[in-house]
This record gives sequence, structure tokens and C-alpha cells, in this order.
Amino acid sequence: MSTAKKARTTPPYELIYWPSIPGRGEFIRLVFEATGTSYTDTANASKDGINSVLSLIDAKSTTSGDGNPPAFAPPALKVPGEGKEGKALVIYQTPSILAYLGDKLDLAGSDEAEKHWILSHALTALDLNNEAHDTHHPIAVQLYYEDQKDESLRKAKFFRESRLPKFFGYFERVLKANEEGKGKYLVGAKLSFADTTVWQVLDGLKFAFPKELAAIEKDYPTLFETFYNGIKEEGGLKEYLASDRRLPYSEGIFRHYPELDRQ
Amino acid sequence: MSTAKKARTTPPYELIYWPSIPGRGEFIRLVFEATGTSYTDTANASKDGINSVLSLIDAKSTTSGDGNPPAFAPPALKVPGEGKEGKALVIYQTPSILAYLGDKLDLAGSDEAEKHWILSHALTALDLNNEAHDTHHPIAVQLYYEDQKDESLRKAKFFRESRLPKFFGYFERVLKANEEGKGKYLVGAKLSFADTTVWQVLDGLKFAFPKELAAIEKDYPTLFETFYNGIKEEGGLKEYLASDRRLPYSEGIFRHYPELDRQ
Repeated sequence: MSTAKKARTTPPYELIYWPSIPGRGEFIRLVFEATGTSYTDTANASKDGINSVLSLIDAKSTTSGDGNPPAFAPPALKVPGEGKEGKALVIYQTPSILAYLGDKLDLAGSDEAEKHWILSHALTALDLNNEAHDTHHPIAVQLYYEDQKDESLRKAKFFRESRLPKFFGYFERVLKANEEGKGKYLVGAKLSFADTTVWQVLDGLKFAFPKELAAIEKDYPTLFETFYNGIKEEGGLKEYLASDRRLPYSEGIFRHYPELDRQ
Repeated sequence: MSTAKKARTTPPYELIYWPSIPGRGEFIRLVFEATGTSYTDTANASKDGINSVLSLIDAKSTTSGDGNPPAFAPPALKVPGEGKEGKALVIYQTPSILAYLGDKLDLAGSDEAEKHWILSHALTALDLNNEAHDTHHPIAVQLYYEDQKDESLRKAKFFRESRLPKFFGYFERVLKANEEGKGKYLVGAKLSFADTTVWQVLDGLKFAFPKELAAIEKDYPTLFETFYNGIKEEGGLKEYLASDRRLPYSEGIFRHYPELDRQ
């Protein structure tokens, strides 16, 4: 699905995630794309690719193949040759996949301290991602939005007015305190998976809550002017974001319901 | 606060978390206690220990000290001498702290595959932990339960009937598939931080939803009979759970509201 710049030096990475939406798979795609790493986005690569996801989450399965434990939910990463006894390794959970790929693709900092700060910041962005999802599904994932709309209206107001300033203010402080990064990077002087993960959540929020973001972005100039705009221009990412591999937001984690936005 | 069996071979670990409740700090305490590792639970160690938490989450701070980035929320782990230039290392986010301590305290598996499976399972348990919290705070963390009780009643029903079976069924399958662990361990043949983390969430759920758990535990015999009861007997943990260092549940993540339990 992507160009194969590093195809000869990296294993044939396979991303297993729902097709047609960015979703949590997007956090994994961004680290591949930012590093020019070849990967197969299996469910988007062919018509029956979705079977790889359905097989992964089979509630009766006791393995995700090759002796790996079952996966609770997508995304999963499959790495041929890197598992037990030379078989494939399969990892699920977005932060765990990011930690693995961060090490392999040099997006995890320069020492142990940076490695853990990067994971922590990515986890915080993923917490914000979950809270954004819950604004349209505050009661149950299996209900339609329309069947939990009253609760959504109530939750979204608190989310916009309390949670967004808390998270944005936090990342603004992290950027300002990291002098080496000059506002462009959260940790150290170069791109990490904390940057790509925070960036994706900001981008999704701009889609889901355009009026709210337009009103408050100016309060966090390092985060939105220097960082957000800077990451879009990173080598690998700029090309990817303009390509048809970048899937549009629709009915996934980030949804634009005008009634949940600032009125 | 704890015994000092390994005081001479490990750094003076410091846990910074809210006093008087188990909360997310408990996931960190369990890895120390299971390995007989000395640590200071700062906010519980003295009357003004809470100042370490308040300082950590100061919304104007640009550092958690010694050149470390600010922390978004407790828990945080401070490790003197392990940070940049021989200063203290400070890490926030529960899964990041668990990954760090897991490596140091030999609770992170025997190879790279196991290391990532363990992190993934712990992350899944922490997702369940968050969903349990949200049953009594579905709308906003800053509102009292009484001000979001209608929504809580609705959410808790879906949580009990759909989410608990999904998570319990998943961990039951993981245990059954890991033949080496004989139902006692999620990954490999010995204790990991995945085990302590899943165990703590099960224990909290038994407190919060006693009727529901009593009714459905029998459907997951490996998880509740072999695993849950086995972990309670592990060296270090058995002593800890009987000690006054083990804080009682009250008004934290796990709360017992009879109206949210099975009727």
C-alpha cells in the first residue's frame, strides 16, 4: 500500500485494522509513513482483506496465529520472523505497537528517559482520543449515536470546556519546556511517535469540533502554529497526507456532529 | 512505607500518587510488593506528602523536576540517579511506569515477544479499569455522581451485560492458551505486571459490582478460580494484601453503588 523505500532493510510489516477509516490504525500508519517504511495495510489492500480483522477478533479464538496470544481488538501488527521460534510476532494495543515500532524505526528517543517520556505523551494523547470518541458514545459502543444523543450533548460540553483546555495546556507546556525541540518536537530535537500521535489527535479534533478549535487554538500558539503545522511538513508525512492512502474522517472516532460543537 | 528487602540493590523508588485510595497508584504498588522492592509511597508516608502530588499537577509547571517534562496526572514514578546527567528520572502514565519497572524488576517476560504481550494485556486491563470508572462518571469527572446518576444507571447496565463478558472472556482465552502458565499466569511460566494489573481490576470489580460478579464468575473458571485466587497467594502479594499498606476501596475508581450493580 505504501512506497517501499526501506523494503530491503525492514521486515514485511503488516497492519491489521478496519478498512476505510483512519481510526486507531492511523497512529500506526503515521509512524510507517514518517519513516518511509514499507508496510501492508491488509484490510485496505484487497476486497477480502477485512477477513484478517474478523479472524483477529473472533471471540472463540485462542491465538492470533503462530503461537501469539489472541488480540482483544484491532489494530494489530504482524511481523514475520520476529516471534517465537522464528515465526511471526503479533502485537495488539496501539501503545504497545507504537513502543515496538518506535524502537525499530528510531522514533523512540535517544535514551531510556526519552523513551519513557515519549510513550507517556503518546498515552496521554490516546487518552484524549478515547475521550473524544466518548463524546458521541458516552453510554455504550453498541448503541447508535442517535440513541445516546442527550447524554452526548451533555458530555461534549464538558469535554470542550474543561478537557480540551487541560490537554492542550499540558502539551503546550511540554513543547515550551523542551528547548531542544524548538516547539516542533515534544521530546528531544527530532521526530518521535509522541509527535505523530499528538498530531493525529489534534487533526481529528479539528475535524470533529471545528468551531471550538477555531475559537481556542490561539491560546496554544506553540501547539497549533509551530507544532501542528510543522509536523504536517515533515518528510514522509507531507507526501502521505496529500496521498489517497490518507483516509478521510467519517463515522469513526472523530465525527463531525455540529450540535456537539461550540454553538 | 514498605519493607526494604532489596533496598541495597535497587534505587530509592518513589511513587507519587493521591493518598488514602488504591486508585491507579495500586498498579504500581503491586509490582513493588510482588518483588519485595523497597519504595516510598510519598503522599501516604507523611501528612504533607500530598504536596508532592499537588506540585506534580500544577497547571503552570513546565517540569516535574530535574529536567523532566511536566506530568499530566498522577501516578508518577521518581527514580533518583536514573535521569539525564545523573539526575532523577520522573515518568508519568501508569502503563509507561509499569513498562519501566517491569524491565527493572523482572516482571516483563523473557523475550521481546513476551514483553510486548505483557504490556498489551496490561493496557487492556487498564482500559477495563477506565470503563469501570466511567460507569459512575459517564458525563464529566468534575461532576458529582449524584449529578450524573441517570446516565450512570444506563451506562452501568451495558457495562455489566456487554463489556464485562467481553473482557472476562478475553482474559479466560489468554490464560487457557498459555499452556506454560497453567492458568496462573497470562504470559509465560511466571508472574508479570500483566498478571498484577489484571488481578487488581478483577479485585476492584468484585468490590464495585459484587452481585454481578457473583453471578458470572463461574463462566470464567480459569480467570476467577485458578488465576485470581492464585495471584493472591504469590509471595510478596499475600503478605501485602493482609497488611495495612493495602488501602481499602472507597470513593476512587471502584465504588460500590448498589443501584449500579445487578438487581
